[in-house]
Formats: sequence, structure tokens, C-alpha cells
Amino acid sequence: MSHNSFGHLFRFTTWGESHGPALGCVVDGCPPGIALTEADIQPFLDRRKPGQSRHVTQRREDDAVRILSGVFGDERTGGQVTTGAPISLMIENTDQRSKDYGDIRDSWRPGHADYTYDAKYGVRDYRGGGRSSARETAARVAAGAIARKVLGDTITIRAALIQIGPRAIDRARWDWDEVSRNDFFCPDAQTAKLWEADMDAIRKDGSSVGALVEVVATGVPAGWGAPVYGKLDADLASAMMSINAAKSVEIGAGLEAASLRGEDAADEMYLDENGRPAFRSNHNGGVLGGISTGQDVVVRMAIKPTSSIRIPRQSLNRDLQSVDVITKGRHDPCVGIRAVPVAEAMVALVLADHMLRHRAQTGR
Amino acid sequence: MSHNSFGHLFRFTTWGESHGPALGCVVDGCPPGIALTEADIQPFLDRRKPGQSRHVTQRREDDAVRILSGVFGDERTGGQVTTGAPISLMIENTDQRSKDYGDIRDSWRPGHADYTYDAKYGVRDYRGGGRSSARETAARVAAGAIARKVLGDTITIRAALIQIGPRAIDRARWDWDEVSRNDFFCPDAQTAKLWEADMDAIRKDGSSVGALVEVVATGVPAGWGAPVYGKLDADLASAMMSINAAKSVEIGAGLEAASLRGEDAADEMYLDENGRPAFRSNHNGGVLGGISTGQDVVVRMAIKPTSSIRIPRQSLNRDLQSVDVITKGRHDPCVGIRAVPVAEAMVALVLADHMLRHRAQTGR
Amino acid sequence: MSHNSFGHLFRFTTWGESHGPALGCVVDGCPPGIALTEADIQPFLDRRKPGQSRHVTQRREDDAVRILSGVFGDERTGGQVTTGAPISLMIENTDQRSKDYGDIRDSWRPGHADYTYDAKYGVRDYRGGGRSSARETAARVAAGAIARKVLGDTITIRAALIQIGPRAIDRARWDWDEVSRNDFFCPDAQTAKLWEADMDAIRKDGSSVGALVEVVATGVPAGWGAPVYGKLDADLASAMMSINAAKSVEIGAGLEAASLRGEDAADEMYLDENGRPAFRSNHNGGVLGGISTGQDVVVRMAIKPTSSIRIPRQSLNRDLQSVDVITKGRHDPCVGIRAVPVAEAMVALVLADHMLRHRAQTGR
Amino acid sequence: MSHNSFGHLFRFTTWGESHGPALGCVVDGCPPGIALTEADIQPFLDRRKPGQSRHVTQRREDDAVRILSGVFGDERTGGQVTTGAPISLMIENTDQRSKDYGDIRDSWRPGHADYTYDAKYGVRDYRGGGRSSARETAARVAAGAIARKVLGDTITIRAALIQIGPRAIDRARWDWDEVSRNDFFCPDAQTAKLWEADMDAIRKDGSSVGALVEVVATGVPAGWGAPVYGKLDADLASAMMSINAAKSVEIGAGLEAASLRGEDAADEMYLDENGRPAFRSNHNGGVLGGISTGQDVVVRMAIKPTSSIRIPRQSLNRDLQSVDVITKGRHDPCVGIRAVPVAEAMVALVLADHMLRHRAQTGR
Repeated sequence: MSHNSFGHLFRFTTWGESHGPALGCVVDGCPPGIALTEADIQPFLDRRKPGQSRHVTQRREDDAVRILSGVFGDERTGGQVTTGAPISLMIENTDQRSKDYGDIRDSWRPGHADYTYDAKYGVRDYRGGGRSSARETAARVAAGAIARKVLGDTITIRAALIQIGPRAIDRARWDWDEVSRNDFFCPDAQTAKLWEADMDAIRKDGSSVGALVEVVATGVPAGWGAPVYGKLDADLASAMMSINAAKSVEIGAGLEAASLRGEDAADEMYLDENGRPAFRSNHNGGVLGGISTGQDVVVRMAIKPTSSIRIPRQSLNRDLQSVDVITKGRHDPCVGIRAVPVAEAMVALVLADHMLRHRAQTGR
Repeated sequence: MSHNSFGHLFRFTTWGESHGPALGCVVDGCPPGIALTEADIQPFLDRRKPGQSRHVTQRREDDAVRILSGVFGDERTGGQVTTGAPISLMIENTDQRSKDYGDIRDSWRPGHADYTYDAKYGVRDYRGGGRSSARETAARVAAGAIARKVLGDTITIRAALIQIGPRAIDRARWDWDEVSRNDFFCPDAQTAKLWEADMDAIRKDGSSVGALVEVVATGVPAGWGAPVYGKLDADLASAMMSINAAKSVEIGAGLEAASLRGEDAADEMYLDENGRPAFRSNHNGGVLGGISTGQDVVVRMAIKPTSSIRIPRQSLNRDLQSVDVITKGRHDPCVGIRAVPVAEAMVALVLADHMLRHRAQTGR
Repeated sequence: MSHNSFGHLFRFTTWGESHGPALGCVVDGCPPGIALTEADIQPFLDRRKPGQSRHVTQRREDDAVRILSGVFGDERTGGQVTTGAPISLMIENTDQRSKDYGDIRDSWRPGHADYTYDAKYGVRDYRGGGRSSARETAARVAAGAIARKVLGDTITIRAALIQIGPRAIDRARWDWDEVSRNDFFCPDAQTAKLWEADMDAIRKDGSSVGALVEVVATGVPAGWGAPVYGKLDADLASAMMSINAAKSVEIGAGLEAASLRGEDAADEMYLDENGRPAFRSNHNGGVLGGISTGQDVVVRMAIKPTSSIRIPRQSLNRDLQSVDVITKGRHDPCVGIRAVPVAEAMVALVLADHMLRHRAQTGR
Repeated sequence: MSHNSFGHLFRFTTWGESHGPALGCVVDGCPPGIALTEADIQPFLDRRKPGQSRHVTQRREDDAVRILSGVFGDERTGGQVTTGAPISLMIENTDQRSKDYGDIRDSWRPGHADYTYDAKYGVRDYRGGGRSSARETAARVAAGAIARKVLGDTITIRAALIQIGPRAIDRARWDWDEVSRNDFFCPDAQTAKLWEADMDAIRKDGSSVGALVEVVATGVPAGWGAPVYGKLDADLASAMMSINAAKSVEIGAGLEAASLRGEDAADEMYLDENGRPAFRSNHNGGVLGGISTGQDVVVRMAIKPTSSIRIPRQSLNRDLQSVDVITKGRHDPCVGIRAVPVAEAMVALVLADHMLRHRAQTGR
């Protein structure tokens, strides 16, 4: 057991605080012989990087990753490859400005982990949220990039933001190509436009807002996952809920499944044009009995509004005195935006783990 | 790693198929010296037992549990107590009627795990769903009863059904005492009445319907849970999603959190009349940064409609021929009902595990 | 983590006390489609069974194993096979005679776990040693039989007793066929004769004696095992030391390696007649860097003399009064004898686990 | 499961190759509030450091450790303390000289892991042994220093070298103070003198030699450890056998236990002058039934001679051609010497883990 590790066979362990010298992770169990350099990882970090638009935190971090172990290359290998040894990744923190956080040293910000860390540990690295900062998710994204290499090209994992506050996209306008064309990873160009105004207003108010992320993994073969506590969807649920500020996880129809009748929820099967089993719908989000069906694996996650806002909220300080808390500093008014690449990474990490678990038990 | 185990320090492993001779579980890591007999477990099994009303499966199972190990009593101990050794629990299957399932031997029931088990394992115990049957959850409920004993009397874990199909309860009428007075574990007497008619209609149609379950744990001290992958809510999410037919998990505000603004979502803190930190709201469902706040821990789970219905659905058989599938047999038209005690048990199991994990690291 | 589980991917969990109703284990992670019935397991239990000669305990147990889950057979499968679900095995206890142990209820037998169980748990099932009884090893042997099926016919795992007290076998006379021809699993017929007299004298004295067990696994392919904490030999060491009364573990040259020089210890390599890498010696016991070499895997384990003897030893009772302890009852004067099939089983279990771990990471 | 992690609740994961940019580890599960700076760790690394006498490798490494996360200090904490978050430790490699190893790129050194890494992974970082280098043990020593802080001052863990090649110390002359006064961690001054000459001769021959290490942990309370697969001695066995070049592990009487009779092996109990249970001997090495007795925990480990010698040995290259291998470079002629602080560290790490496991289950 390790509180800071995730996965069983493809397993990663993260470390680091928001304002420490660096953060990183160790990826263990990676198959050998997979081509891997920093260039395979950096683009995913760049997508998550702060400061890329006015709608996210203005903290400036290069988030440049270094691979410290677990790879090797010479003329035999034809380029750098994984060796099967643990892969250590490190990202140095370069823009900490810890002075910004002096005023929250003694107060518990509502909606933050300040109080619970104090209650649990009796000591808390308050600088930038310390270990509870979303900065930890950079390590997940880096590990996720390796997971993608393990999964190979036949599996595609993409995520999008489908709701900010009360405003949802129109799924009829879903276009994956749009996701990289706006500041919100939004697959619906029209809604993205509306969100710009929404977000400008929220930022001006010193407020923040929640969001909904959807991840779709295409190309996952039927058979991955393991009943009954190693279910693919149970691990996806844990992975999503481990992301900072996540409050719900849905698979396929998700919450809507509660309202359905059996004949509508059934994903009927037929033989497709290639003579392979196929499904007429995907209410189950690509998972039946905890095992993948071969359809798209579909996961959604609600992200609560950032707790760091400039609107005063009542709270307590460590001396149990009543205080009004205003959080200055450079915060994401909608952490859901930058959660998109993180959610993708977590799905990739779950799938890579289950790929190895499946072949361990079945040899395939 | 074990696919059929759950928990780390308070850990249980289940085994058994729907139509095998028995099912059971082994609970490991239980603290010693806790009074425990079958009478502590049986009432919880009785709540989950089939055949208790016309709204659930008419299968007849006594679900009588036997403790085969891990307890001991003599004059010194003053009654039977746990010894710290693994506790083996066994429930014999008495009403299998496996003839009912002959016709689904070769066909894949839509919405069931038939196809995915075949895809994964190449062999499938089709009798009553085999390992994928919800019958496995009896073992969870039995283990959950032990978890409650570990947690002690200061923690109360209760669940209720709050929606069947499109019809939800009125939360203003929530009365925990009602839960044991109707066939639905419904906390709202008026809605329970309406559900009776709803369910009769669904049953008459040979259909089934989804439902929403809410679990509330009261008395959990602040400080349980562990960032970042051992978060209390991440483990609750995994626990809930491992329950048969679960499609969503929500903590606190859950999916609704996506729509909120920061100032509304913040759970403001104040000092209560006992001089203890308290909160003015509970959007976070009793968990911040993966650690309990001391508030009620609130978890919701959507259960999809039973896939076994008498309305024909199109599917394939193992020879990849198109077939119409009708599932006869004695099925729950709304598996969400009997999922209520299972959900309670899983929350108890997660909490017992985190109680031990917390004291391992902090000594408290 | 589970104190009563062993292995990672091929993982088993044992339960049961010496004088409870039954004991058993759950084997999880077994590959599907492997032919398995009780008849595959029973012969191994019969080898370990008490009462087979005057040199072992006269307790009478049938040790009849039942498979309660995880297997299925119909005309498709052509006989009963594993399904990939957890395999639950149960052995009922039939000859407990717990009255024999009344006198050790309050006293701590020297060399036994009585004192340490009391120190740890504050409660102890003293009947027949409870959980600390070697009776638990029946479950290991049963699980080990399944591990052998997973490993297949190309891997042979055999053990022998090579020393009882100060008298060792002559390795020049080693004959595997002899192992089944005497009461001691001794590969040297001449030494077995001498042991008969040795053991008769020890039994007459009411004493007991230590022994040395050697296990040899032939046919293990090169490449199993995993640096640096999942080393094949580290797992073998843990497996052996978990056996009751084990006090040492050696791999290959073992303790003797301390006395060697580098040029003598080097296992030189050459190409064998089949054009495959081979070794001129096996000081490393078939493991280099924690990974199998393809040679025989050679493990030895010292077993201390049974602590239950009829010669009085000074000890304390639970009231901390000085007492003389004499252990009556039906004990093995040399537990090393019946440890032989247990040691074989543990090696099989480690290898099956590493077979799955190897193919998880490498795909082979 | 993680091949490069050790421990369950106090768990560390190591990474890094001999000739990569750095090596390190992540320690997870550390209790919060423990004073910790680099100065608590460095002295232990300095004891293990190469180049400290002519009897060990002349490689020059500072082995300066940096703590990158998991600690925090301000006026409240009164110095830097652990926060409960993962502690990342890094040691940069400064003296790699990878040119020395060019000639072993293609050949498999007898007794080394070269062949097995190739057999398993198909790729191998041959520079200085890569991941199989004993350089990895620096990370263990660093983690072990933290484990000591967790264990506190009442537990002392010391190791000594008690045999080099065929020459053993005289236990009657054992003096712990001597251990720091010679180049061999030898507790017997007279034998240390003789070893100087022995080692000079071996080095001159270009050979190497095996050794025997003994670790003694004093002050471990009764009750740590957990039957039956989480036994304290089983975990110690795994820990010791995971150390490079280890070939045997003994607890207490160890191998000698095979030769004993029951009445001699029994560790009789009495009440000591403080009215506490005590033992007249310690054949069991402080562990009974897998649980500590309160006596000294005594572990021994044989280390084989370094496989890197200047005396030519026959082997194969990757093209399966016969070659004579001579290993130049700066090797330890007796790796057993520098294994002493490593063995201490591993015992500390096992004990810290069991301390937390014990209090998890029992609350003490």
C-alpha cells in the first residue's frame, strides 16, 4: 500500500509540493524496449501548463521534464528505450513566489484541504497548498505520457470540457478537432465562445466556477478489467476521484442510468460489417461486469469551483478564531479547464495497468 | 494485488458463484478483541436477502452465515471475540435452480457480463451469472457487518433509496425511520407509496428500472483519508463502482458541483457550541483534499436497470449468430433496492480500512 | 497488504485454526482454462498428511479438500477447468481433541508463539496452537498443487530432507526415486536407515530434532524474477521463512558462499550441445541479480526442532509465575519431515506468481 | 505490487542506475512531525561510501543526499519536520567513468546479472551494471536513516562483519566499539588485523572473497510482526536476500538449528529483575511465530564474492561466442564490507514498517 502510488503493474508514485524545489514521479513496471525520450512527454505537460490563456492561473512554470533513470540507448537499441527499470521523472519548480501565501498560513481556506491536513498531520506545508496543490497533477500527466506509449497507437485517449458552470455544450456539435482550437478544450466552437464571456465575468467577480470533463478512450480491446474489485470502471472511478476538486464520476450513461428502463438501457449486439461483435448503443460506457466491451470507454467527472476566490468567506484560523478568508494569488478561476489533460492521463494510466494485468492472467 | 480483494489494512477477499455450493469471504487485518458472533452479521444479510417483497427477486435463500475462523471465546475473553487472525465467512447456496439458465448458456444477454467474460476468459460459468451475479454482494454485506464492529458505536452508516426511474424523493420529507418501514429503503413515505405502483407496472411489463442510492456516514472524525491516491473519496468511488450495475458515484454536491460558483460551493467554517470547528454547509460531502472533515460523509450511486428483462432484445450467441434474448428466471426488477445494504457495507468497509490506515501513520 | 496472503498475481490467502471447524484458502489470479479437480490437489495433501509413519504426529486427519468456487465444466470445456474467478479450497478438521491442550491455556510453551500472540493480540486461541499451528500449511500445499498446474509439465519441483539433527545425507548417493520410498523424504537410502534409529531414540526421549530441507526446481526458464525488491530469491526467502519453524534460507551455495573466492564462485558459461547458453556450476542456485538463469533453482531451509517436547522446560504462565512446561499431545518429533511437501508447495507458488509477473511486464 | 518498492506502510521505492545522472528513492507513509534534515541521513551514507580504504572500490562518490519533498519547517514546527507527504531523496552520480565498461557491453560476466537482464528485458544498461549495480543500495541506506528516526531512540540497530572468506571472528571478543575502528566493520580487533593481510593478498591476486554479516536490533518490543505471511522474519529474509550478492539469511540459530534437539533449542522464560518476561537464550533470534519476543532480533546474511575479478573466467558474448572475461574497473574485492550499513538499513526499514503495521491492527 502506498498513499502516493497508483496502479498495480504499471504503477507510478508521485512526490513533491507546490513550492518545493521540484516534483516528480517514479514509474515502475514499464515494459522494456519502448522508445522514450523527454520529447514524448513534454507536449502533454505543455497542454496542462499554467499561464496559457487569461482563463487559467498566471503562474509561469516551464514544467520541463527530465528522465533520470530507466532508459538507455546505444547503436543496438537504435534510440533511447525503456529498460524495464523504474523511470524517474523530475520537474523543477521555477516560479514559486511563496510570499503570496503567507496570509493563509494560519487560516483554513473554506473548501480547501487546509483544515483536514492540520487535523490529520498536525503540520502543514501551506506554501501554495503544499502537497494538496493541483501542481501534483503535472507528475500524473508525465506518467500518463509513458502510459500512452505502452498502450500504443491503436488506442486513442481524448478528453474535452463539456460544461462550465450551468452552461453545457451541445453534443450535436461535438468536433474533436475543436478541442485544440480554444482555451477550454471545448469540442463545440459555439459554446467555447460563450464560455469566454462567462469566464471573463467570473474572473472579474473574483469568483470561480465548476466544470464537467469527459474522457473517451477508443480502441480498447474487449476483455480488459477484472471482476470484482479490480473492475475497470472501479479503477477509473478511483483514478478520476483522486484528481483535485473532482466530485463525481460517471461511466457511460452515468447518473442518467438511474432514470432508465431496462429495454432502453440494454446495449443490443449485432455483427458488424467486419464480422465482429458490435453494439447499437453505449449506455454502459464500454464496460460490462467490470470488463471492457471493445466499445469506447466513456468517463465523465465533475470538478468543483476553485476554492481560492477573492470573495470573502467565513472561516477559522488555527487558534479557532473566526476570520474572513480572501485568497489572493494566481489561481485558476475554473480548475476544470486544466483538469482535462489530467483526466486523459489518468485514463491512460488505468488502461496501461489493466493491459498488463490482463496479459498476466490470460497470456494475451 | 488481488482482483477479488478490497481494502488495504482491513481487507476482505470474496469468492463464490451464484450457483456453486457456497460463497464467502476472508476478512484479514481485523483488530483483536472485538466481540463477534454470527448474530452480529446475520441481521445485515437478512436486510439484503432475496424474496422479502414482491418487488425483488423471488429466489429463496436463507443466507445463513457461518464464521469458520478468526474468533475465540472462553471464560477469559467473556464471550467470543476476534483474535486478529483471518475471519472466514461462508454462506451456503440453497436455491440454485440452475435449469432456469440453460437457455443463456450460449447467448450473450445485452447489458450483462456474458460477452465480456467470454472475451476475457474464454470460459464462463453461466449458471445464474456465475461470478458476475449480484449474489457476490452477500459476502460484502457480511464483511461490512464486521467493519461496523471495528468502527464502533460512534459511527453510524445508513443508506436509502432516493430515486427509482425518473421519480425522486422529496428531500424535505427525509425521515431515516421510514427506511425500514417500506419495501424500498425509502426515507420518504409518500414517494414510497408511488414507487409501489411504479414497480408493479414495470414488473408487469417484464421490464426493469434504474435507481439512485445515497449513503450517509455520521460520526467519522476529521483526519481519515490520505492524499493523493489513497483519498477517502477515491476509495469510496472505487468501492461504489465495484457494486454490480453501478454507473456513477457522487461525493457531496457531486455532479451538481459542475454548475456551482466558488462562493456558493465554499463550506464556510465556524465554531460550534462545543467549541469545535464546524461547517455551514456540506457541498464537499465530508471530504476535503481526500481527508474527512468530521462532517457527514455523503456518497451517492446510480444503479442501472437490471439487464435481465422479459422484453426481447437483440443480441448474438457464441457462434456469432443474431438472436433475440429474453431473460426468464427470478430477477430483481430494480436491483437498486437490494443495493442499499450493499452500499452501506462498502462504505463501512472503506471507513474501517481508513481508520486503521490513519492510526498506522499518525498513531491516533 | 494482507498478513495472511502470499503472492502478487498468483495470490493465495489462507485462513483457519488448528482446532476450528475447517481451514482453507482462496487462490486469486489463476489463469482460466486450466483443468482442475480435487484429484489434482489431494495427492499433495496426502503426502503432507499426519499419521503416515511412527516418526510424525499421530493425529488422524483425512485432509480431504473441496473446491468451492472458481471452476466450471460442461461439454464445451471438456472437463472441469478454472474460470479465472477465485478458487476457494476448504479442508474440514476432523480430529481435534482439544482437551489435550487445556494445560497450555495459561502457560507459554518455550519456543512456541504462545507468548508472542498474547503480547501482540491480548487473546489467543490456544487449542492446538490455533493460527500458529503447522496445520495451516495444509492450505499452502493445496494452493501449491494449483500453482503446479499453472506452471505446467515442463517445470518440476521436488524437495528432499537432507539432514536430521547433526546427521546429513551423502550427496553422492542422492537418488530422487528414494524420496518416496522412506518415511523421511530422504534421497539417500543409507542415511534414511540411520535416521530411523535416530528418530526412535529421540521419540523415546520425549525430545525433538531439527532438519534441513532442499528444494530443486527444474525447467524454470531464464528471465523470471524482478530486480530489485521483487527478486526471485528474495521472494523465495520470504516464502521459506514463512514456514513454521524455519530459521534459515539458502540459495545455491548459500552460507558456504561466505567462504568462497571469486574465481571459485563464478558459474562459468558455455554453449551446450543444443546451442544454448549453459553453466559449468550452479553456486548461484539458478538466480543472478534476482532473475532466473535457466538452471535448477536450488533452495535450502533449516527447520528448528519441534518446541513441543515431553522434557520439562522452564517458562512463565500468563500470571507471570514460573512454571515447568511439558507438552503432551501428538506432536511431530521432527517437523522438518512434513515440511518437505510444504517447501515444495511454497516454491511452486513463488514460481507461478513470477511466471505471471514476467509475462505481465514482458509479454512473454 | 512494485518491483522496486519495499515495505507496506513505511514504503520506499528506489530508482536509478550506476551511471545515470542520479539515483534516489521516495519514502511514503512516514509519520508526520518527525525532525528530519539531510544531516540525519548523510552520516549513514558516508559509512557506505566508496573509497574509504584500500579494501573497497576506489570509485569516488560524494553521495550527497538532497531531500526534495515531504518536509517543512517554520517557527511553529521548530525546525524541519516530516509532513506525512512522500519524501523524495536524490543522490547525484559524480564519478561514473563509463568508458571502463565498454568491454563488457557484449559479454556476460559470470556471476553477474548481465545474462539474466538480457534474457528478461532484451535490453541492458551495461554501464557499471546499470540497475543491478550495488550503487542502488545507497538509496536504501538513505531510506534506512529515516526509518531509524521513525523507530526512535529506544531501538538500536547495529551490524558487523563476522567472517571474510573462511576466517571468522571469535565471538568471545565481540566489542561493538571496535566496529568503527577498523576498515571492515569488524567487532573483533584481532581478526580485523588478520583480515587486512587476507584482503591485501586477495586484491593482489585480482580475486575477491565472500563474507558474513550479522545485524542485531535491540529494543524491539514484543508483539511486532504478523502471522502467517507477514512474519517479521519472513520480511527480514526478503529484505536481506534483496541485497546484492546475498546468498543466505539466518534468524537466530539459523542453519545451526537443523542440528539441535528440542531441549537445547528451547529459549526458556523467566521473570527478570524488573518483573518482566525474559529468556535464558535466544536461539530464535528474537522472533517466535513471526512475532518479536522483545529480545534482540538477530539476522545473518552471507554475501558471495564479488563477481568482478581480474582472473579470467570463461563465458559467452551476446553472439553466443565463447569468450574469456576479465573485469577491470574499480571493484570491491569484498562487497560484504560495504554491505554492512546496507544490512542495517534494511533491518531498520523492516522494523519501521512493522511498527506501523502493528499499531494499525492493535492500536498500540
